[in-house]
This record gives sequence, C-alpha cells and structure tokens, in this order.
Amino acid sequence: MKLNIALLAGDGIGPEVIEQAVKVSDAIAQKFGHEITWKPALTGAAAIDAVGEPYPDSTHEVCKNADAVLFGAIGHPKYDNDPSAPVRPEQGLLKMRKALGLFANVRPTFTFPSLLDKSPLKRERIEGTDLVFLRELTGGIYFGEKGRKDNGDTAFDNCVYTRAEVQRLAKKGFELAMTRSKKLCCVDKANVLETSRLWRETVQAMEKDYPEVEVSYEFVDAVAMRLVQWPNSYDVLITENLFGDILTDEASVISGSMGLMPSASMGAEVSLFEPIHGSYPQATGLNIANPMATVLSAAMMFENFGLTEEGKTMRDAVNKALEAGVVTEDLADGGKAYGTKEVGDWLAANI
Amino acid sequence: MKLNIALLAGDGIGPEVIEQAVKVSDAIAQKFGHEITWKPALTGAAAIDAVGEPYPDSTHEVCKNADAVLFGAIGHPKYDNDPSAPVRPEQGLLKMRKALGLFANVRPTFTFPSLLDKSPLKRERIEGTDLVFLRELTGGIYFGEKGRKDNGDTAFDNCVYTRAEVQRLAKKGFELAMTRSKKLCCVDKANVLETSRLWRETVQAMEKDYPEVEVSYEFVDAVAMRLVQWPNSYDVLITENLFGDILTDEASVISGSMGLMPSASMGAEVSLFEPIHGSYPQATGLNIANPMATVLSAAMMFENFGLTEEGKTMRDAVNKALEAGVVTEDLADGGKAYGTKEVGDWLAANI
Ligand SMILES: CC(C)[C@H](C(=O)O)[C@@H](O)C(=O)O
Ligand SMILES: CC(C)[C@H](C(=O)O)[C@@H](O)C(=O)O
Repeated sequence: MKLNIALLAGDGIGPEVIEQAVKVSDAIAQKFGHEITWKPALTGAAAIDAVGEPYPDSTHEVCKNADAVLFGAIGHPKYDNDPSAPVRPEQGLLKMRKALGLFANVRPTFTFPSLLDKSPLKRERIEGTDLVFLRELTGGIYFGEKGRKDNGDTAFDNCVYTRAEVQRLAKKGFELAMTRSKKLCCVDKANVLETSRLWRETVQAMEKDYPEVEVSYEFVDAVAMRLVQWPNSYDVLITENLFGDILTDEASVISGSMGLMPSASMGAEVSLFEPIHGSYPQATGLNIANPMATVLSAAMMFENFGLTEEGKTMRDAVNKALEAGVVTEDLADGGKAYGTKEVGDWLAANI
Repeated sequence: MKLNIALLAGDGIGPEVIEQAVKVSDAIAQKFGHEITWKPALTGAAAIDAVGEPYPDSTHEVCKNADAVLFGAIGHPKYDNDPSAPVRPEQGLLKMRKALGLFANVRPTFTFPSLLDKSPLKRERIEGTDLVFLRELTGGIYFGEKGRKDNGDTAFDNCVYTRAEVQRLAKKGFELAMTRSKKLCCVDKANVLETSRLWRETVQAMEKDYPEVEVSYEFVDAVAMRLVQWPNSYDVLITENLFGDILTDEASVISGSMGLMPSASMGAEVSLFEPIHGSYPQATGLNIANPMATVLSAAMMFENFGLTEEGKTMRDAVNKALEAGVVTEDLADGGKAYGTKEVGDWLAANI
C-alpha cells in the first residue's frame, strides 16, 4: 500500500513522541512492503509562533490531501489560564476538527496487566476493563452560536444537534459494537435536555437495524458514577461532544495506563490519530516522554486502513517492551528507565 | 427556637428515612429546647398519583411558608427510561428548585474512617478527602430555551448565565472557603464556552474582596480526572448547573460513604435539605434503607439555622452508631444488620 500521512508533531513532547511513532511505522512498512510518505505540517503553539495561527491553511491543505493524519500534542504554558487570549492553540484544534469533518472521536480505555497497580482504583474494580467511547466531535455546544448580551452581563452558548449528526455517530457505535461484545450504551441527559431526547429517540429508531446489539440508555451523571464503580461493566459508549469530553477524560485515569492510551478521530474523508496525553511542556527535549501511546495511535491508523496484521504487530511490540521492562521513567517504578528514543529504537527493532 | 419545617417524604424509601430524621430531630429539639412543627406535603410520583402533578401548588405554599424543607427522595420505576412521558417526577424537582429559588446546591464529600474500605479507590487515594461542591442550581442549560426545528429533526438547548447569577453562587463559595481551608476551585470550560468565560471573569473580579482565599481555575474535564486521582487535593469547588450535576455524582462514589452523604440546596428565603441517594424503589417498605444520610441532612439544616451544637450532636450520634456497628445491611459487612427504624431509634436515644 502507498500511504500519504500528514505529520502534525505540535508542541512540547509532541515532536519527540512522533519521531518514535514514525520510526516504528517505517519498520512496519518495510516488513509488510508498504510505502509511507510523511508530510510534516505546523500546528498548535508552534504554528502560532511561526505564522500567527494554530491551524494554518497550508496545514489544512496537507491534511485534506493525506490518507490520514498522525498527531502529537498541542498546548504551551504561555497560553494557559488565559481563555480570552485572542489566539490560542485549542482554537486550532476545534478549527481542524470542523474543517476536516472529524465527527467521531474514538477513545478506548483498556488495561495492561503489568500496569494494573498504577490505577487509583482497586485491582478488583479495574481488572478486565476494556471499553470504548465514541464522542461526537463536531457538533453540540462547542460549535453552536455563543456570545454576550446586556453589555456583556449575560453570556450564552447554544447546544444544537441534528438527527443526521446523531445517526452518523450512532451508526459508527452500532458497527463497533457488532465487532465487540454487542453492547452499546447511549449516554445522555434526556430527563432534562431536548438535544438528549433527540439523541435517544434517534438511537432507539436505529435499534431495529442492529437486532443483535443490546442497547442501554443511561444518564450522564449515572455514567460518571459507574465509570468509577464498575468500569468493566461497559463496552461501547456513544455520546455527544461535551459529555464525551468529560467522561473520556474521567475514563482515561481509571486504568492506570493513561500514558499509553491512543485515540482516533474519524471523518468521512480523512481520519486523525493521536495519543490522549498532552504536550507536557516540562518534559520537552529531555528524552523522557513515553512514546507508546503515539505508537499505539499509529497502530490504530494501520488498522483503520484494514491493515490488521500490521496494527497487531505494533501492539505486540509494545506489550513485549512492557514485559521486558523497556520503558520510560513514568513506568520504570524504581527500575531502569530508558529514553524516549531508546524505547522507539527497541520497538522498531522488534517489529 | 420555633421551627416550621416542610416535610417532603417523596417516593420509595423516602417516607421511611424521613421518619427517622424526624425522630432524631425531635430528640434534638427536646434536648435543646426548640419547638419543631412538621408540615407534610406531597411531591414526586406520590404527588402525581394523588393530584396529577409532581410539585403541586399546595406543596409550594407549604414550602414557601416554612423555615426550611426536609426532603426524602423522589422517583419511581414506572417513570424510568421514558424521558418523553408527559408528567415526570424530575419535572417537579426542577419546578421546585426554580420556584423556591434554590440557587446553590451544597454537596459535601467526606470519608468515615470505618467505611474507607468500601471506596472503589485505594485507601491512600481517598484518605483525608473532605471537599464540598457548590453547584449552581437554577440556571444554565437546565432552564434556557429548548425546543425543536426542521420538523423535529433539529433540537437545541440554550445555556445562559448572567453575571448576577454567577456572583450570587460565587459569593457563597468564597464565604464557605473562608470557614474552611481558604482554597476555592472554579470549575469551567472557559477554553470553549462563553458562559464559562463569564464565570471565570466574574470570579476573578471577586478575588480582591477575599484576599485570603486562594483561587484556582480548572477545566471540567481536568477536574473529572483529578477527582479520581487525588480527591483530597480539593476543598471548595464552585461550578455551573450541568457540570455540577456530573461532578457531584462522580465525587459521591469515590468516598465509599455514598449512602451517608447529605446535601443542601440554599435559596434566598428558604433552603432544602436532602440525602443524595435516590428513592431505591426495590427497598420500599422493607425497613432496610439506611437513614443516616437523611439524619445528616437534618444536621445540616440545624447548622444552617446557626444551631451548630445541635448539628454536631446529631453527627456525633451517627459516628457513634457507625463505631458501635448499629447500621443497616448496606454497611453491616456480614455482621448484624439493624432495621431502618431501629437505627433511627438508637440515634434518637443517643442524642
Ligand atoms: C482543548 C479542548 C478544546 C479539547 C476539547 O474540549 O475538546 C480537549 O479537552 C479534548 O478533549 O480534546
Ligand atoms: C433528576 C435530575 C433532573 C437531577 C438533575 O440533573 O439535576 C438529578 O440528577 C440531580 O442531580 O438532582
């Protein structure tokens, strides 16, 4: 296969972890006879510094014409805690999601046996957890009309969803459930919100097309509780943008493997793959960041091209490294800590 | 003191736990020389069955003219999973909050040493947790304009806040922080929402009036994570209605003492006190429900009248019962389980 991949390294540790994912992907390409062309482009604070905006048109061109986007992380302390600054990296993120039509954010939470003890939850609560959130990413209150009235003393944000938007996301949810344990949970606040009632009735109407999938409907506050109590009782969950933002982050910390969690944002044309961790500015350039989440994101990318064997080979390499203790300091637990680059080299050598 | 208390027992186990709280409150009144007049009124499914609506005008009259409201729980399975039913108990709840102006929901999460092992979190994560959420309860997306367009294919919910609403809630937050460790966390999503930017700028402008309070600003998704990771790093948190709904429920399960957590909803005129647990329909009439959360809610009520000693005496009785193993089956852990009524009797006898 010939693959054109847009490479958005971003800020902080982004470039370092991306470098390792490229290295491991290239090893996969060589082994399986694919040809990857990497197309680097600017994003985030790095792009603001260079050209004054976080998602420049030139970057959009590169992404739009690529077969997929591999993304590092964005964010820089100089933009922190100032949500009213005129230009901020997050705006680039939202603009990119919208412009590329990345409507479904796929966020798995699973456990690695060797990392179970890192979880804040007791072992018996977390063991066996393997769930996936599908978060709607281009609608809802993030993108509705927002503004001020009464000389700035009243603020509003409108949350809007159309039936077609819900169907598009829910379809992915049903399809994913069919490849897993055929359990789907629709998360909403239908006892209060009209948009949630639209979500619920739309999903209910789709149930007949997937007779094998067992669908449950739960309120967002109840899910926020059960995620901490019995995370392993969930499989596939679908939800709207803001609920998804909160719940996927909550879910990410329960496993103890947060630093290893990959994600995908799927669009109709192009999809994007990125680790869920941030840009960890303090670690920039120190060769200590854990590259595994980015490598696993690249694995999701291969799988999304239908290259299942390639994805599995990457995952296996990560598991092997974990077992062999070839890990960065966040996982070293007093043992030897390898550098970001060394872990990348080891993974590439073990493909 | 002469106290007129509206008594809204509600559904399910509501009447049983309320009965115990009344018994213990009466013992307090006798000991400290107060006179309580209880004014029962209908609410929830019970009210729908009786008069066709969940918060009848007659109930509102009783509440409005009372010094405080003591509330059990509402909700009945026949209204579950049908968010589009024409009349539902939750509507009564929202109507009551708005009509009584209950703008600040106070939700403490604390631990009881004897219950620490019931937490899904590891002991070292949860030990020492003692935080309070102030959730705005009569504004935001719950009460903004909502509806459908395009023949029902588009739904919308508008989230609206005024500066005055934020100030009112934040003032309570600063005041509460001053009586505790002087740490206040403002939870918002100011990197995306205009209402959140209004929240943040309003709280920032109030900082100068409380120079001793150290204020932090955190995004709702980050708080959803840190609540699971380091709950004991928080003290007072203030937030808007929907974020508060999700985060207070998440916080309630981390301590292992969920069944014991009280809450208050404060208004300008009258305030309401209720356990955070639900109506547990399955346990109705079985004399097995734990009355302690309702008793602790009554303790908050006394404290809110400035009757600190009375509140403390009730709390001490609950602690004593826990230590003596005078508990309902949810806390019995294989030991002897007392009935709802017996726990109530014991608490009253130990005032
Ligand atoms: C940075 C922010 C705008 C973003 C979001 O809320 O979507 C982030 O929290 C995420 O989840 O990717
Ligand atoms: C029943 C529901 C409307 C209510 C809410 O969302 O406010 C409940 O979840 C709560 O938190 O009291």
